[in-house]
Amino acid sequence: MDVIDVIVTKRDGGELSTAQIDWVIENYTSGAVADEQMSALNMAILLNGMDRREISDWTKAMIRSGERMDWSALDRPTTDKHSTGGVGDKITLPLSPAVAACGGAVPQLSGRGLGHTGGTLDKLESIPGWRARLSNAEMLAVLREAGSVICAAGEGLAPADRKLYALRDVTGTVESIPLIASSIMSKKIAEGTSALVLDVKTGSGAFMKTPERARELARTMVELGHDAGVDTVALLTAMDRPLGRTAGNALEVAESLEVLAGGGPADIVELTVALGREMLAAAGIYGKDPADALRDGTAMDHWRRMIIAQGGDPDAPLPVARETHTVTAPASGVLTRLDALAVGVAAWRLGAGRARKEDPVSAGAGITWHAVPGDRVEAGRPLFTLHADEPVRFERALQALEDACEIVPDGVPRLLPLIIERIVP
Amino acid sequence: MDVIDVIVTKRDGGELSTAQIDWVIENYTSGAVADEQMSALNMAILLNGMDRREISDWTKAMIRSGERMDWSALDRPTTDKHSTGGVGDKITLPLSPAVAACGGAVPQLSGRGLGHTGGTLDKLESIPGWRARLSNAEMLAVLREAGSVICAAGEGLAPADRKLYALRDVTGTVESIPLIASSIMSKKIAEGTSALVLDVKTGSGAFMKTPERARELARTMVELGHDAGVDTVALLTAMDRPLGRTAGNALEVAESLEVLAGGGPADIVELTVALGREMLAAAGIYGKDPADALRDGTAMDHWRRMIIAQGGDPDAPLPVARETHTVTAPASGVLTRLDALAVGVAAWRLGAGRARKEDPVSAGAGITWHAVPGDRVEAGRPLFTLHADEPVRFERALQALEDACEIVPDGVPRLLPLIIERIVP
Repeated sequence: MDVIDVIVTKRDGGELSTAQIDWVIENYTSGAVADEQMSALNMAILLNGMDRREISDWTKAMIRSGERMDWSALDRPTTDKHSTGGVGDKITLPLSPAVAACGGAVPQLSGRGLGHTGGTLDKLESIPGWRARLSNAEMLAVLREAGSVICAAGEGLAPADRKLYALRDVTGTVESIPLIASSIMSKKIAEGTSALVLDVKTGSGAFMKTPERARELARTMVELGHDAGVDTVALLTAMDRPLGRTAGNALEVAESLEVLAGGGPADIVELTVALGREMLAAAGIYGKDPADALRDGTAMDHWRRMIIAQGGDPDAPLPVARETHTVTAPASGVLTRLDALAVGVAAWRLGAGRARKEDPVSAGAGITWHAVPGDRVEAGRPLFTLHADEPVRFERALQALEDACEIVPDGVPRLLPLIIERIVP
Repeated sequence: MDVIDVIVTKRDGGELSTAQIDWVIENYTSGAVADEQMSALNMAILLNGMDRREISDWTKAMIRSGERMDWSALDRPTTDKHSTGGVGDKITLPLSPAVAACGGAVPQLSGRGLGHTGGTLDKLESIPGWRARLSNAEMLAVLREAGSVICAAGEGLAPADRKLYALRDVTGTVESIPLIASSIMSKKIAEGTSALVLDVKTGSGAFMKTPERARELARTMVELGHDAGVDTVALLTAMDRPLGRTAGNALEVAESLEVLAGGGPADIVELTVALGREMLAAAGIYGKDPADALRDGTAMDHWRRMIIAQGGDPDAPLPVARETHTVTAPASGVLTRLDALAVGVAAWRLGAGRARKEDPVSAGAGITWHAVPGDRVEAGRPLFTLHADEPVRFERALQALEDACEIVPDGVPRLLPLIIERIVP
């Protein structure tokens, strides 16, 4: 087989055969196919697409490039959630222990933040002592102890995807639905979960800006899961405004603890419960409700066991940023808009996020908003609190927030529904 | 400036600014833009195109990556020809001295063959002693002595194009008209000629299989020449059948010598004269006809001076292949088709061509055809003579020739006109 034939097939709008896909992924992983050849192929895929069979083959080939985890030693069914990422999206933190409390096993491999979107591992690392890197044996032990585990994917999982993602990141080929879907699903399928719920976000703060693109990505991933024997459903959810009341690592852990204690912002609770019910149904677990687990303390109990099992101290005080700055409302009226992207960029600039994957993040930095769309605000009263370790960061964060809000006397917010649509195979 | 922005602009169908093009070519040449980034951009250009202004900027940026030659020290106008390559295309050999004999200065930088198409330098290197590599000072001296010079492009000429071409070759991004046109024209403009005639071939043996694609390439290159101040015209010519009666290095030199001696195949003479007249007209030289120069011996005289000035012995016997094999006509009738690609592949397999640019070629290998389309052939009489250094090569050459011919009793060949169209700015 010749790599140029493979590239030319896709360049000219043709369909890649299973043999071509297996060959190109295997040889790219080994280094026989060069980065410049794979990047030309990626661009051809981005512009000419792949059909369902091609995407499924592409995903399977990436899974085969590494190990596939196996949780058959557990006495309970595995179920997991993946979010395409957003601003203030700390759902995984209350969700995993709530589902564990209802009898699911949640083997969640998670990621770090990049740009304006936060990462689950960065948030959990603000808990003193907590470790993101676990061996497979440690993962199994935490799952047995706490019912859920949240950790970084090991090097052995879909190495082809790791190499390919790094390449796409520097060659302008990230925004391809077949490549995004196969990247996400190869890791989730290799992770060994038997049920999967996808939270596909849309709106200014999401990777998919329009519901149409988000729906296409969700459908593609649901099909991929189905084709690989993983019970998969997707919820299309709103990311036109941020989730909850905070964006930032320790700030979001604190907000998650409120939810685990039976309180917390209504949108976080609603989404946690909806996703949790989907995870349980996909795993065939009935008669248990994550809303009860949040209310009766069993979710909090599972959270504490999970944090402790991963080396963390659930009672240690969370890090706090050295400096704060308050932004007051410029007018009175109804907050009709709070832009997710603007808030995410502000949090990033305050130190909560990173521009490159090797950059550090600040545990305490971030932003708190004191009103959500639909709330009445009064001129001169606090609207945002900014948290940063260096006061020099406030200026650029404030620039990001300049057009983040709209306040209209007696206005009515025009928002996407929190849960827009449910997508099944 | 950020390379990903440049890639994404073209990926999403946008227009690259002059600043973006200058930046990306400069930084690719220096190595700051990586091969995998440039190959993604190449694929986006191949699929989404570039407009006239972008192609012109791209070409200028490639020229600026190296030196631009200057022939103002000569007392005669410079004029050159470029062919997109074909089978049996030895036109440069009689053409350059014929134009020199008419008062033009021909500073021709030429290339080597690849695949089924021959290269001018490979052909001339079958002349004992002849040197393809000359310094700029040597080029000037040969031009002064003989009126024409044919040699390899130096390393200093459009280095961005050299690097880019090598990349396109391994990434399935050769077949882009904007990239082909800018590659050819950057070298020709940097070569410093003030007039240029393009021989753009179409048909099975040509790079552009259809007249539409060939016309588009020709128009693009004529516009590029015009935009760079080089008087440029193009002829669209036939490559459905091979040119002349031979394909192979020394074989084609021998055929060229027949033309320089006032004889030779009619199509070679017709194309040489037509291109020569265009070269002279583009250079503003009137009252001289290359047809006369071929007839009266002045073209041959200039040929001998050029060969000697480049170290060659014009009287030395040309290399001959060690083995020959005769193919006879399978039937009697009119030869209605002789496929250029099949003949070219046969010559390549006999040893006249190379698969990779570092491979050697055989000087004596090649193929002679004893009939051209329209000729009557008789069953059992010689149709082809194959020349090779190793008899083992005959079998695969014969396979290539299997469907090369069509012989029909009282048939009439359906051929493209030799000169299909003339394209001016």
